[in-house]
Amino acid sequence: MEDFGTRTDLALESARMFSEKNGRLPGVKIEEYDAGDTGIHVTRVRIVDETGARALGKAMGDYITLDAPMLETADEDSHKAITEAVAGQLKRLAPDIHERNVLVAGIGNRQMSPDALGPLVADHLFITRHLLETYGRDAEVTRGMGCVSALAPGVMAQTGMETGEILRGAIKETRPDLLIVVDSLAARSVGRLNRTIQMTDTGIAPGAGIGNRRYGISKDTVGIPVIAIGIPTVIDAAAIVSDTMERMLNAMEQAGPLSEKETGDDGLPGQARRMAAAFDDQERYLLMRELMDPEMMDMFVTPKNMDEIIGRMSYTVSEAINSLCHPDL
Amino acid sequence: MEDFGTRTDLALESARMFSEKNGRLPGVKIEEYDAGDTGIHVTRVRIVDETGARALGKAMGDYITLDAPMLETADEDSHKAITEAVAGQLKRLAPDIHERNVLVAGIGNRQMSPDALGPLVADHLFITRHLLETYGRDAEVTRGMGCVSALAPGVMAQTGMETGEILRGAIKETRPDLLIVVDSLAARSVGRLNRTIQMTDTGIAPGAGIGNRRYGISKDTVGIPVIAIGIPTVIDAAAIVSDTMERMLNAMEQAGPLSEKETGDDGLPGQARRMAAAFDDQERYLLMRELMDPEMMDMFVTPKNMDEIIGRMSYTVSEAINSLCHPDL
Amino acid sequence: MEDFGTRTDLALESARMFSEKNGRLPGVKIEEYDAGDTGIHVTRVRIVDETGARALGKAMGDYITLDAPMLETADEDSHKAITEAVAGQLKRLAPDIHERNVLVAGIGNRQMSPDALGPLVADHLFITRHLLETYGRDAEVTRGMGCVSALAPGVMAQTGMETGEILRGAIKETRPDLLIVVDSLAARSVGRLNRTIQMTDTGIAPGAGIGNRRYGISKDTVGIPVIAIGIPTVIDAAAIVSDTMERMLNAMEQAGPLSEKETGDDGLPGQARRMAAAFDDQERYLLMRELMDPEMMDMFVTPKNMDEIIGRMSYTVSEAINSLCHPDL
Amino acid sequence: MEDFGTRTDLALESARMFSEKNGRLPGVKIEEYDAGDTGIHVTRVRIVDETGARALGKAMGDYITLDAPMLETADEDSHKAITEAVAGQLKRLAPDIHERNVLVAGIGNRQMSPDALGPLVADHLFITRHLLETYGRDAEVTRGMGCVSALAPGVMAQTGMETGEILRGAIKETRPDLLIVVDSLAARSVGRLNRTIQMTDTGIAPGAGIGNRRYGISKDTVGIPVIAIGIPTVIDAAAIVSDTMERMLNAMEQAGPLSEKETGDDGLPGQARRMAAAFDDQERYLLMRELMDPEMMDMFVTPKNMDEIIGRMSYTVSEAINSLCHPDL
Repeated sequence: MEDFGTRTDLALESARMFSEKNGRLPGVKIEEYDAGDTGIHVTRVRIVDETGARALGKAMGDYITLDAPMLETADEDSHKAITEAVAGQLKRLAPDIHERNVLVAGIGNRQMSPDALGPLVADHLFITRHLLETYGRDAEVTRGMGCVSALAPGVMAQTGMETGEILRGAIKETRPDLLIVVDSLAARSVGRLNRTIQMTDTGIAPGAGIGNRRYGISKDTVGIPVIAIGIPTVIDAAAIVSDTMERMLNAMEQAGPLSEKETGDDGLPGQARRMAAAFDDQERYLLMRELMDPEMMDMFVTPKNMDEIIGRMSYTVSEAINSLCHPDL
Repeated sequence: MEDFGTRTDLALESARMFSEKNGRLPGVKIEEYDAGDTGIHVTRVRIVDETGARALGKAMGDYITLDAPMLETADEDSHKAITEAVAGQLKRLAPDIHERNVLVAGIGNRQMSPDALGPLVADHLFITRHLLETYGRDAEVTRGMGCVSALAPGVMAQTGMETGEILRGAIKETRPDLLIVVDSLAARSVGRLNRTIQMTDTGIAPGAGIGNRRYGISKDTVGIPVIAIGIPTVIDAAAIVSDTMERMLNAMEQAGPLSEKETGDDGLPGQARRMAAAFDDQERYLLMRELMDPEMMDMFVTPKNMDEIIGRMSYTVSEAINSLCHPDL
Repeated sequence: MEDFGTRTDLALESARMFSEKNGRLPGVKIEEYDAGDTGIHVTRVRIVDETGARALGKAMGDYITLDAPMLETADEDSHKAITEAVAGQLKRLAPDIHERNVLVAGIGNRQMSPDALGPLVADHLFITRHLLETYGRDAEVTRGMGCVSALAPGVMAQTGMETGEILRGAIKETRPDLLIVVDSLAARSVGRLNRTIQMTDTGIAPGAGIGNRRYGISKDTVGIPVIAIGIPTVIDAAAIVSDTMERMLNAMEQAGPLSEKETGDDGLPGQARRMAAAFDDQERYLLMRELMDPEMMDMFVTPKNMDEIIGRMSYTVSEAINSLCHPDL
Repeated sequence: MEDFGTRTDLALESARMFSEKNGRLPGVKIEEYDAGDTGIHVTRVRIVDETGARALGKAMGDYITLDAPMLETADEDSHKAITEAVAGQLKRLAPDIHERNVLVAGIGNRQMSPDALGPLVADHLFITRHLLETYGRDAEVTRGMGCVSALAPGVMAQTGMETGEILRGAIKETRPDLLIVVDSLAARSVGRLNRTIQMTDTGIAPGAGIGNRRYGISKDTVGIPVIAIGIPTVIDAAAIVSDTMERMLNAMEQAGPLSEKETGDDGLPGQARRMAAAFDDQERYLLMRELMDPEMMDMFVTPKNMDEIIGRMSYTVSEAINSLCHPDL
C-alpha cells in the first residue's frame, strides 16, 4: 500500500477511491453534514478495524475533513467561520485540550511556500509554557493561559535528523501530554487543494506529507497522544498526468475521432473505450508514475500564488489552536 | 503563437522542436561548442530575420544558452567555471558593460522559491550608483567601481503595476544606459530545469516567465538596450502530461498489450501507433492544455528543494554580473 | 535644523521639546483629545506658517498623532480599535480616498525588522489597480473595489537609487492621484516606541526615518498629494545617552553624594546642579552625539522582539488602509 | 557576577576590564599573536582555575578570539583568510572533529538580523547525517563525508522551551558526540562589533547571548563536549551610555569648561576629575543600568545594515565548519 500512501494524504480521498472501485468499504464508517449555513462541509471517516485500515492504507482512528471552498481566499468573515469550525472539530478529538500541556510541531520547510504551513502556524501561536514554568499557574501574569509550546524543526535535508527523532527528544525533556502536528499534505485532486483541512487523532503516517519523512509521528513513536492537522497544498505530478489522461479518454469516447489524420478502421472511440476499461484509476496512476521521468518524483505541482495562500491559511489554523488552548484569554 | 510562448522560454527548445517537426529552420543560425573541459555546452541561436522570428515565436536577436549540468549542485569549482562562462558570454552581448550605467532588474516573486531568481540576484549585487552620485568617479572611495543600480519591484499581484511600467519610470528618472533583467523561466523539458542559463539581447517577451506579465521588456518598451538572463526553474503542468503521454505511447508500441483486461481484437499496439501518429508534439501539448483542469493553468511544477537550488544559482549569476561591471575591484 | 530632524520624526515630540524650552510655540496649533474610551489619545499638531515650520524643523501641514499604548501587544479588540482610529484620522487627511487612484509606498528595508514596517504593510494590502485596468470599474469581478497599487522599492544601499526617484518614475508611468508612504520612524523617547502612529499630509522630510534618505517625498518632489504614515520603531543612540545623563543628574541632585570615594569639598550635588543647568535638553543631545563613537551614528536601538511587534503593527496599518480604500468590500 | 555576564560575552573583554582595574589576573593565561600577514590577531585566554573563573565570571576553559577587522566587509580574499583562521583554531579545540558525529546548533532568532547568526550558519552547512544513516559510510554516495546534523530551534519566546532542553532531547535521540553551538553575542565595545569571533570549549554560559536564556549549554547540561562559536553583533544600551559618559568626562577634563553658562567657582574640570575618580568602569556601567529607563533593558544597539553583515559573516563561519567536518570533499 506504500504507493497508495504517496498518492493522497486525505483519508477522505482514499475512501472515495476505494469505494468507487469496490462498491463498499468494510471497517470504515463515514458521517457527513453541512456545518450550518457556513458553506463548510464536514466529513468524518472512522477507520474502526484492521480491514478498514488495510483498505485505505491508513491507521485506525478518526479523520475529520472540513471542505471549505473559501479557505484560500481573503474574506474575514469566512476565515472566522472556518476558524470556529476547526476549533469545534479539534475539540471533538481532544475535549480537554485547554487543560493539557500542548506541544505544537510545525512540520515542513519554512523556505518553500507549499511546505511552510506548519512553521507558519507555529509562528502565530501564543506561546506560554515558559511563562507558566517561570511564574506558575496562579500568577497574575499567567491568568487564563493554557500551556503551549511549539517547535518547527525543519526538514531532514536541513537537519540530518528525522523530525520524529527531534520531537521525541523534546517531548522527553519537556513533558507535554499532547502533541499537535501541523503539516502540508499532498492531495490527489486539484479540487481539494487549499480547500480542505484534515484533522486526525492518528498522527502522521510514514511517507506522508510533502517531504521525505520515513518514520511516522504517532503515539507509538513519541509516547503521547498525537493530533495531526493538515491542508493539501500540492498534488503529485503523476496524479496530474493520470487525471488528464482520464479526461482525454472521456473526451475521446464522447467526441468521436479527434483528428483527420486518424485512419484506423476501428476508430478511436472504440479504442479509447477499451483503453479506459483496461485500467482503473489506481492502476492508471501507478502506470503514470512508472512512465514519468524519474526526476519528476522529486517535484510537486502547486499554485503560482501559494505564498499568499499559505499565509492566510496558517492564520486560520493558528487562531483555531490559540482559541482552544487559551479559552479564557 | 501565444501558446507556443507559454510552452518554453528557451529559444533553444523552440528551435529544436521546430526543426524536429519541419526538418529545417529558415532565418535562424545555430552555433554550438563545448566550453573547454568545463562540462559546459554553449549554444548560440541567432534569429536573423522575421521568418525565423515567426517560426520560433521569439524576437529577432541573439540567444546564448549555457548548458551546465552542475549548475544546481553545490560544488565550488563548478560554480566558478559557470560564473566565468556566464560573464564571458554576457561580455559578447555587451562588450563595454563596465563603462555603462547599468540597472539590474530582478523580476519575480521573492516569496516563491522558483520565482525568486531575479530578486535574489539583485540582493547579491554590489550596488554603487548612489556612491558615484555622491562622491563622483574620481574619489578614493569609488576607485575602480562600475556603476550599478538594482530594483526588484515584485510581481503584478503584489504591486498592481506591470513590471515594465515600474522599470520604465525608474529608467526615465535615473538614466541608466543598459538594463539587465534577470528572471525565472519556464522550460519544456525536465532535463533543462536548473541546468540551463539563457542570455539574450532581446529582453523579455510578453507572457514569458513564471508570472503573468502581459507586456514585454525590451528596447522598444523601456528605451534603452535590454539584456535578459534567465534560468528555467519550472515546467508547466501541460508539458509534464504531454511528455508522459508520449512515453506511454512509445512504451505501448514497444511492449505490446499492457493488460490482460484488454480485449480489443485489433490490440493496443496498433491503436497506439495510430494515436501516436495522429498528433505531433505541439498538437499533443495543446490538446493536453485543453483537457487539463482549468485551475492547473495557474500552477507550476518544481523540485521539492528549489529553495536551496535557487540560492546557489542566484549567487552564480550575481557574481558574474559583479565581476563584469566592476572588473577593477 | 538638520540635527533636530534626526532627533525625532514626530512633530509632537518636536513641539513638546520646543515649548518646554521656549514656553510658547508660535505658528503651531495643537488640539488634543481622547478617542472615546479606547485608551487612544489623539494629538493634532498643525504647523500653520513658516515661523512654526522653522521652530519645529518640519514642513507646514497637519500632523496627527495617535498614542495607543496597546499598539505593540497582541490583543484583537485593541487592534480593531486602533485600526478604526487610524482609518478615521486618515479620512480627515484625505476625505475622498476611496475614489482616488492610490499608490502605497512601503519605505524601508524588509530584511531589518525595525525598518520593515513599510514593506510589510505593502504585503498585506488588497491590490486592485491591475484588475481595474484589465476588467474596468463596471465588471462583476471588480465590484466595490477601490484602486490601489503598491511598491516596496527597498533602501538606497540595495538599489543605488533614491526611493523618491523610483516613486516619481512609477507615478509618472501609472498616474495615481494620491501617494501614501508608510515608513518606520525614529523617536526621541523610549515611551513612544511602538506606541505612536503619526499621520501627516506633508509627506516625508529629507533625512527622516531610519535609512539614509537624502531627499524628501512630498507633493513638491513627486507631483501628487502625499500622506505619510509612520510608527517610531527605533531610538537613536545619542538620545538614549542623553536621557540617561539627565536621569543621572536628577538623581545626583536629589540623592546627594553617590559614593564614599567622592572627596571634593564642594560635593557632587552642587556640581550636578550646575552641570544640569549648564545644558538644555537639545544641547545635551548634540553634545552626546559629538562625544559618541562615530560608528554609533550608523546604529540604532530597538527592542529584542521587534520581529513580532512589527508584524502585528503592520497588520493594523494595512487593515486601516484596506478598509478606507475599499469601503464597499 | 551576574551583571558582569550580561556586560560582555567575550572572555577577552572581561580579562582586559579585570586587569585594567586590578593590575593582574590570577588563574588566567593569555597568549597573543598575529596570524601571519592576514591582518587577523589571535588571542587565547585560558582560564585555568576557579580563581580565574570567578575573576572573569566565566567557566574554566579555552577562549580563542580572532580579531578580524575585515570580517564585516565583502572582500572575497579576506573571507577566505578568516575562514581558514577559524577552521585552524577550531581544530585546536577539537582535533578529531572530522571523525566525530557533529551536531551544530544555530542558536538565536532567525527573524532578527543581529540574532540570526546561528540559524543562518545552520542553513549553509552541508548536512550528511541522514545520508550516512541511510547508505552507510562505505557507499559511493557518502564517500568522503563527515557526519553533520544541525538544528536551529528558535528562541524561548517562540518555542516556550529552553534551547538547552531541545538540544538535550535531540542529543539523546540522535547520539552525536560533539555539539557545536553558534550564537550571536553581546560585546562591551563598539570596536569589537562584527569584527571578533570567539571560540571556546566551555559552551554557552547562562544568560549569555542576545536572548533570554536562563540555562547554559555545556558538557554538564547536554552530556557531550560543547564548542561554542560566537560573534558580537549587539552592544547593550547601558554600555553605550557608560562609554559616552567616560568620553565626556575625559573631554571635560582635557578641555576645561564647556559652556559659558557654567558659573560655579570650582569649575567643571575639577568636578569632572573627581567624578571620574569616583567610579571605575564597572561601577559606572552598573550605575547606568540602574538609571536607564527599565524598558531599555530589553533593547539592543545594532548597525543599520546588520542584515547584509550577518549574511556575510554566517557564510564565513559555515564554510569553516564545512571544511573541517568534510575535509575530503
